[in-house]
Amino acid sequence: MSSLVLQSDFGLDDGAVSAMYGVAVGVDPTLRIHDVTHNIPPYDIWEGSYRLAQVLTYWPEGTVFVSVVDPGVGSDRLSVVARTATGHYVVTPDNGTLTHLEDIFGITELREIDETRNRRPGSEESYTFHGRDIYAFTGARLASAATSFEDVGRTVDLGELVRLPITAPTLRDGSIRGIIDTLDVRYGSLWTSIPRELFRELAVAPGDRVRVRVHHHDTVVHAAQVTYAHSFASVEIGESLLYVNSLDRMAIAINRGHYARAFSLGTGASWHVTLDPVR
Amino acid sequence: MSSLVLQSDFGLDDGAVSAMYGVAVGVDPTLRIHDVTHNIPPYDIWEGSYRLAQVLTYWPEGTVFVSVVDPGVGSDRLSVVARTATGHYVVTPDNGTLTHLEDIFGITELREIDETRNRRPGSEESYTFHGRDIYAFTGARLASAATSFEDVGRTVDLGELVRLPITAPTLRDGSIRGIIDTLDVRYGSLWTSIPRELFRELAVAPGDRVRVRVHHHDTVVHAAQVTYAHSFASVEIGESLLYVNSLDRMAIAINRGHYARAFSLGTGASWHVTLDPVR
Amino acid sequence: MSSLVLQSDFGLDDGAVSAMYGVAVGVDPTLRIHDVTHNIPPYDIWEGSYRLAQVLTYWPEGTVFVSVVDPGVGSDRLSVVARTATGHYVVTPDNGTLTHLEDIFGITELREIDETRNRRPGSEESYTFHGRDIYAFTGARLASAATSFEDVGRTVDLGELVRLPITAPTLRDGSIRGIIDTLDVRYGSLWTSIPRELFRELAVAPGDRVRVRVHHHDTVVHAAQVTYAHSFASVEIGESLLYVNSLDRMAIAINRGHYARAFSLGTGASWHVTLDPVR
Repeated sequence: MSSLVLQSDFGLDDGAVSAMYGVAVGVDPTLRIHDVTHNIPPYDIWEGSYRLAQVLTYWPEGTVFVSVVDPGVGSDRLSVVARTATGHYVVTPDNGTLTHLEDIFGITELREIDETRNRRPGSEESYTFHGRDIYAFTGARLASAATSFEDVGRTVDLGELVRLPITAPTLRDGSIRGIIDTLDVRYGSLWTSIPRELFRELAVAPGDRVRVRVHHHDTVVHAAQVTYAHSFASVEIGESLLYVNSLDRMAIAINRGHYARAFSLGTGASWHVTLDPVR
Repeated sequence: MSSLVLQSDFGLDDGAVSAMYGVAVGVDPTLRIHDVTHNIPPYDIWEGSYRLAQVLTYWPEGTVFVSVVDPGVGSDRLSVVARTATGHYVVTPDNGTLTHLEDIFGITELREIDETRNRRPGSEESYTFHGRDIYAFTGARLASAATSFEDVGRTVDLGELVRLPITAPTLRDGSIRGIIDTLDVRYGSLWTSIPRELFRELAVAPGDRVRVRVHHHDTVVHAAQVTYAHSFASVEIGESLLYVNSLDRMAIAINRGHYARAFSLGTGASWHVTLDPVR
Repeated sequence: MSSLVLQSDFGLDDGAVSAMYGVAVGVDPTLRIHDVTHNIPPYDIWEGSYRLAQVLTYWPEGTVFVSVVDPGVGSDRLSVVARTATGHYVVTPDNGTLTHLEDIFGITELREIDETRNRRPGSEESYTFHGRDIYAFTGARLASAATSFEDVGRTVDLGELVRLPITAPTLRDGSIRGIIDTLDVRYGSLWTSIPRELFRELAVAPGDRVRVRVHHHDTVVHAAQVTYAHSFASVEIGESLLYVNSLDRMAIAINRGHYARAFSLGTGASWHVTLDPVR
């Protein structure tokens, strides 16, 4: 039996997540159910997509994820199950939630959930909570092997997958450009889209200084020189640093501070960051 | 073995919920323990009562709930276990927490917890945390079948159950009147006390317009026309709608907005809402 | 098999806690994993130390705790496993996190984690997330008996344990002096460092009045007379009381109010409180 791992933008203040748990326990009381997070900002598909990629490979092969950030519930968006190249499964509305998983790990097969067969009995007149009635129910049946991936429904062509736009990081004239994908929420570090391997081409050594510039749309809104370091402890308290984060991408932080708040910086496709070695 | 499902107003910032979990694990390390929510606003018995009703039937028959919103800890309020008509159990102080469960699903039997027998060993001098010392302990013993419902303590007459005042929704002169029971917290939708069946008597069809009025005490504080729709996706982003929520009651929302915040609306018995078809 | 119980300052908004869970499930899918809290304020080692002490003995002997409040990740601070006199295990950076456990319950043995053997395979180039790569991994192996305490690494002399300064409460001239250790977060009660036994020496009976003074550094910032009571229900709503909290220490609260917010009081070593009987 695999673990069932839930994610949503429901928060933990009311009973929505508990109802999903209850449905899953009803499918199989011995299921092991855990969470990514339920504090995805409301309707924020980008963040939901990113958090799945943040945790995927730390869970064993075969783990079944259910992700419900679903502003289009009731529209004609598909309900799908994806199998990743890493051997994990993700049950989700097909609305962009699979963007980072496909980009980073690859998706090998996509199936539409046949809702006539894969739906909580008695939920036929419920239109607003597919997270409970379809996704948690189907995820629990997959994780407990009450159904198989093949039996979920028809294959969907991978070309039809809904994708959010991702701009690949670039290296040009010795300068790397990427975007601020998200924050390490509690500590305020900027998590960029720039992978460690691309940064390596700059041949910057630990202890070297790097110039950071942040653009919002076309305007420079922040510039600083920071130290490239293995970890926070390599710089003084209050000092800024560039480091490789736990996803093997470049991140920018203030040791024991909150970088994003200190300089009023945001995240998403309109926030660009460039890195240049200081020679 | 049944699941043990905990609810409280303790929040997740300190160790209170963890202490309850530890006590339950100490009763039986193989127990499956889950949550409704621990973010019930402090002392808010109404909200605790509502959230139990929100999730109850999505959990399998036999599930044991423990709900601790207990401003009267140390007073002469009873500690009880209720058996609902749906076959679930709820361990709680008898302070109104069972109001919605009784109103919606019915309670078939109520027993007072005999605290001389059902109390964490060594907790006799502890007066302020019955959630840990009595409720989690007793709930865990019930869920793991270390004790039986009959063995918890004497039967309490159902007429003695402490109830919060509930005003039943009414239909008069073609207009339905109910209250705003609670919010779908993260999205700001108004969850009214008006059931789908009562609304059906207005013969409003999807796509029809409905006039919404909100009174706080005796004053109209908000009025609007909204579209009756199956789901958010049936209206434009930013448009308001009336829909059947996941509890089969009428709810009012802004698609991707926050209705309660947009119009400064609150919840509880002093917040009335009326629905009139626009002809 | 023992339970694995996690604590951190990561919050629940991103995937950090989920990655720790995933690593633990990967070690043993049948592990039972629970939490103390993940809402320790960022970098607040004192609070992390206190919360462990708040919950420790409510969990069965043999439980393995993992606590990650680790501002020094990447420095030369040790990674250790402690065995407490109560028979529990704690996996943590040695940075003061064990202070309250040692002070209240005692630590019988301390071992340094040999990171060459006790590290998630493939994590050798990861420097910033020992919570996932070393602590959750080692804790899961201990809890599932895949390794033993003796096999974790070399013994560390208990004299080398990193301790935060704790000032013992004192009784002098009929007046007790302690500090405000922390808050009962949601209700705002002041949880002092003064144990019930020390307070007993004042021979104050339930219903008696006690004078409370709070000093911040050397300045009196609050003074009040409150009633000593078994529980909140013994005083009026809105009235203040002194009571024995769930850790057997003296606490000060407003019934259904928020004492700390009402009088702008904080916590930690610079916040002193004195208790004097009113005769």
